[in-house]
Amino acid sequence: MSRIVYVNGTYVPEAEAKLSVFDRGLLFADAVYEVTAVIDGKLLDFPGHMARLRRSLAELRLPSPGSDQEILAIHRELLARNALTQGHIYLMVTRGEADRDFVWPKDGTPPSFVLFTQKRDAIETREAVEGLRVITVPDLRWGRRDIKTVQLLYPSLAKMEAKSRGKDDAWMVEDGTVTEGTSNNAYIVTQDGTIVTRALGHDILHGITRAAIMKVAGELALHVEERPFTVAEAQGAREAFITSAGAFVTPVVEIDGTPIGDGRPGPITRRLRAAYLEAALAQAI
Amino acid sequence: MSRIVYVNGTYVPEAEAKLSVFDRGLLFADAVYEVTAVIDGKLLDFPGHMARLRRSLAELRLPSPGSDQEILAIHRELLARNALTQGHIYLMVTRGEADRDFVWPKDGTPPSFVLFTQKRDAIETREAVEGLRVITVPDLRWGRRDIKTVQLLYPSLAKMEAKSRGKDDAWMVEDGTVTEGTSNNAYIVTQDGTIVTRALGHDILHGITRAAIMKVAGELALHVEERPFTVAEAQGAREAFITSAGAFVTPVVEIDGTPIGDGRPGPITRRLRAAYLEAALAQAI
Repeated sequence: MSRIVYVNGTYVPEAEAKLSVFDRGLLFADAVYEVTAVIDGKLLDFPGHMARLRRSLAELRLPSPGSDQEILAIHRELLARNALTQGHIYLMVTRGEADRDFVWPKDGTPPSFVLFTQKRDAIETREAVEGLRVITVPDLRWGRRDIKTVQLLYPSLAKMEAKSRGKDDAWMVEDGTVTEGTSNNAYIVTQDGTIVTRALGHDILHGITRAAIMKVAGELALHVEERPFTVAEAQGAREAFITSAGAFVTPVVEIDGTPIGDGRPGPITRRLRAAYLEAALAQAI
Repeated sequence: MSRIVYVNGTYVPEAEAKLSVFDRGLLFADAVYEVTAVIDGKLLDFPGHMARLRRSLAELRLPSPGSDQEILAIHRELLARNALTQGHIYLMVTRGEADRDFVWPKDGTPPSFVLFTQKRDAIETREAVEGLRVITVPDLRWGRRDIKTVQLLYPSLAKMEAKSRGKDDAWMVEDGTVTEGTSNNAYIVTQDGTIVTRALGHDILHGITRAAIMKVAGELALHVEERPFTVAEAQGAREAFITSAGAFVTPVVEIDGTPIGDGRPGPITRRLRAAYLEAALAQAI
């Protein structure tokens, strides 16, 4: 690791990339983030990530760290300085630094703005080829999962629970139905070929890749139903998969020990992944 | 502000008190905290705060930042270096610094450990004399509020909602009953003089001051019932109050616009506050 990181207007070696211990991101989890995928040195779905960032900022009345054009310029500078061609860029905006108080600091307190790169093989991953084995856990997160905050402790705990059981990830369950994965939206393909995923609301993240997949599915003449599904329905499905900015479309081949379909990545999932990547790359900037 | 702050083994001026942007406390809210009150330069309920810290660390399998004696020595050093006689000391333990991943860093990654002082008038406050006016809001927090994590975004939002309506604080309501305040436990005194507060569980913080108050109430021969109560029951109560390490016992005189009792701090609340402070100061170290 010897990345160049962006912190509040400056590009610094990662060892010098620091924020005050009085930053509200640290003391109150008073911060939102985005993760934008990079392939061939280009940004995928950048306008989508910017639109969601604006929504998160507005919901929490967080100040803007700059215009979309300014934020794009920082992304590009980080790509260049870190010679990143495949992976992603993480972006965080916090309510800034102030003496600790549940009450917000005075108007005009500058937000903290941090971006860093992470190099990742994104396309030919083991997960994409073999699929994920997931467990289910109760969804104990807060009530506004549509706002992309850094309150990620429970998803991290759920992921660790999956790893401790020798699995890859966890799907979260609330009131009898699956909400989503720890850092991805969840889908099944029913026996009649319908793609089912939970409708947007306060209970799941409004995935940028989810929105793209809905469009791609339409172009492939695949039928999508937006409704909750149970773990039992998922276990009886023909296919299952997740979507996220980092994993694109990735098959799920086992849920709580039950193989999905024949236990291998399914053809609809593979078609969606290929079509998503083609469409996203065509529009990458 | 020109405090001396403790950060990972060193005492530094607050302008230099920083953590890496890769700290998991910042990226995942993967951190717990304690706030210990200081009166006359002494620490209130210190063993209680250490016991709760150990419990929080154990629940999240966070590494220990040191022994109770070592942590006490840091508290005392900060009191001395900042000449603090009244206020509190904030303490935070995070899972440390690592490249961003929902999966925990490898065993042996050192936790980040931060402590700082805050000077506050704690005894003769306006709130203690006049009482708090609170609003109620839905409790949208995660499901493990018994673990004292830094996931404080919603309590901060609720506090701001109260301020925007010209009130002091918010009580959170779940399934028809009050859970607690934004940073305090909630109580009512019924018309027959019984103190009512929610029983311990995953849905509220296990307040150190709450535990002390239960003992003090017993010594004053006051009857305590641990059960949920509704907003309507609270509005019809004789008195209401909150407890926290920072506010001790503080009266609540209005809930959602309805005065409690005669709209002034009640005698049982005042007796509890005085008796708590006397007991806590007698044991302060």
